[in-house]
Amino acid sequence: MSRYTLEVDLGDRSYPIHIGEGLLSQADLFKPHVAGKVAMICTNTTVGPLYADRLKTSLLDAGAKSVFTVSLPDGEEYKDWPNLQLVFDALLQNHCDRKTVLVALGGGVVGDMGGFAASAFMRGIPFIQVPTTLLSQVDSSVGGKTGINHPLGKNMIGAFYQPEMVVTDISTLNTLPDRELSCGLAEIIKHGAIADTAYLDLVEQNMPALLRRDPELLALVVKRSCEIKADVVSKDEREGGIRAILNFGHTFGHAIEAGMGYGQWYHGEAVGCGMVVAAELCRRMGRLSAEEAARLKKVVVDARLPVIPPVLGVDKYMALMAHDKKADSGSIKYVLLNGLGRASTSPADEALVRQTLLEMGAGD
Amino acid sequence: MSRYTLEVDLGDRSYPIHIGEGLLSQADLFKPHVAGKVAMICTNTTVGPLYADRLKTSLLDAGAKSVFTVSLPDGEEYKDWPNLQLVFDALLQNHCDRKTVLVALGGGVVGDMGGFAASAFMRGIPFIQVPTTLLSQVDSSVGGKTGINHPLGKNMIGAFYQPEMVVTDISTLNTLPDRELSCGLAEIIKHGAIADTAYLDLVEQNMPALLRRDPELLALVVKRSCEIKADVVSKDEREGGIRAILNFGHTFGHAIEAGMGYGQWYHGEAVGCGMVVAAELCRRMGRLSAEEAARLKKVVVDARLPVIPPVLGVDKYMALMAHDKKADSGSIKYVLLNGLGRASTSPADEALVRQTLLEMGAGD
Repeated sequence: MSRYTLEVDLGDRSYPIHIGEGLLSQADLFKPHVAGKVAMICTNTTVGPLYADRLKTSLLDAGAKSVFTVSLPDGEEYKDWPNLQLVFDALLQNHCDRKTVLVALGGGVVGDMGGFAASAFMRGIPFIQVPTTLLSQVDSSVGGKTGINHPLGKNMIGAFYQPEMVVTDISTLNTLPDRELSCGLAEIIKHGAIADTAYLDLVEQNMPALLRRDPELLALVVKRSCEIKADVVSKDEREGGIRAILNFGHTFGHAIEAGMGYGQWYHGEAVGCGMVVAAELCRRMGRLSAEEAARLKKVVVDARLPVIPPVLGVDKYMALMAHDKKADSGSIKYVLLNGLGRASTSPADEALVRQTLLEMGAGD
Repeated sequence: MSRYTLEVDLGDRSYPIHIGEGLLSQADLFKPHVAGKVAMICTNTTVGPLYADRLKTSLLDAGAKSVFTVSLPDGEEYKDWPNLQLVFDALLQNHCDRKTVLVALGGGVVGDMGGFAASAFMRGIPFIQVPTTLLSQVDSSVGGKTGINHPLGKNMIGAFYQPEMVVTDISTLNTLPDRELSCGLAEIIKHGAIADTAYLDLVEQNMPALLRRDPELLALVVKRSCEIKADVVSKDEREGGIRAILNFGHTFGHAIEAGMGYGQWYHGEAVGCGMVVAAELCRRMGRLSAEEAARLKKVVVDARLPVIPPVLGVDKYMALMAHDKKADSGSIKYVLLNGLGRASTSPADEALVRQTLLEMGAGD
């Protein structure tokens, strides 16, 4: 079985990502970070029962003084302040201090909330991420974005906060629902589409093996996706410029998520569909050929992701996108492809965006 | 009238503090930070009616595109999540984005909340501090500590986040209640006690002029206090070591504040009294002479601050101090003086601490 370690290069905030099967049980990995310290596992009610005991055993074997667990309800709709407060409550009730290590065990929501809690508790405590969904393994484990949603927008409140280490145990994907596996594939397809056509080829050709969860192949794509994301993030940690290309599909995707109500469409589904809408927009702008747009759409379909935007009405899409935090003083910035494998940000003609949405089925 | 500008030296997070009379009306100061941008004034219901219009005029004269205001209830007891949420609500309802500048106009609570809101909104927007109390002018305007309270502890949730600039208008002290003026003097006395006996002499000798709000003298002590604090903070931005000496009087002080219920004793009052308790402890440890301890106590009395700890019972003091976030894995670290003007952190014999508290009137 292959095992990979890659370093996210962010100066004095650099950290390693360990990728492989069975890593949850490898106490040695945790030892440098938890020996002699109190650890708080932050997980959810779905993942906790499956893996929290195993992780706790490893942390204790690694020399942790004591290990507590706080379990959040599972789902994007709980990524809010009242639930974040549960983490602070648990930390304070268990007399945790600045040396306590917070270990986030779960998907993107747990990682975002655990990371934000770690950034804010006593103005910052050490943080380890143990992502258990394909989406979080290829996406939120790189880049240090943490946060919660506000009733008026997704991820509106948060921090840039880097973990000390990420432990990606591919074995945890065995218990992942099919729908969530597809959500991870959306980001993987995105990494190929914006930065590496050879990688897009590999994903395209091996989609059946990925869908049947071949561990070697999953480890390989997790590694390659992390490399691509780490490469972008290390050039632009706080998203002043090039990092924005990672939001390919996300402008439309965030509008879908917000418009449908958080939790209805999963993030990866919204991004998958958002990429298809963005690709169609690029085709109409002459930036992608019809073949390239069709190819991207087919990969998204093969990953079992939706490609038709939900009927929210075009006005609502435009309003939600203008509200998105990527918007710059009201004007919407899109991530556009200039051929597959090359991305940049740009405004787009509003009439063309409206027409694209309308003709793709988003409703008038 | 004297005017000072000093630079807080924190590498790429360095920023200037401007100190003088009438600075609120000087649009030029704000121009580099707000021209062409949206500004959100975060203030409270006491300070807003006095100064928000003047600040708004300056921001518009400085070229701000538009200026919104959010007003919080006034008091430490409102430094919590529900009130912080009002800031996020205002930012989102007014379609603010990452380029919006948040301007905190008020005392320490407004600065802490405004700063934390700025650090967390869209993971960080620019932030200007306009402190209007003596305490915030000499204390929270240097160091980047922001945050809110949790029911189980003060300032438990927050961030280190530096402003782009601090504008300290000494004229705003004319409307400050006497009780709050004294609170600022507590921190000023602290700066002398931990780092500069000549400064302590100056404050001691000029206490009557400070109490009658002589503007030249106030500007001078604000400047010197900021220098002392900036010097400490620039050596230790994230409080790993020497920065802890700024907490002289705060271990006992936080226990008083929490034990009495936030808002009963003001922070400066609790710190004033906490310094007297700490000095008495130092005397019993042989670190301060009886004369030095008596002198410090007299300066605190002259500043019209309390010197007898409230009757909470010694057990409660010890429990609250063990809970304080400065505590390190359960053992309480005290800031102790080794003679006036020299401070260091150290544990202390619990029995001696208990005896000191008991004999000073803290209750059994």
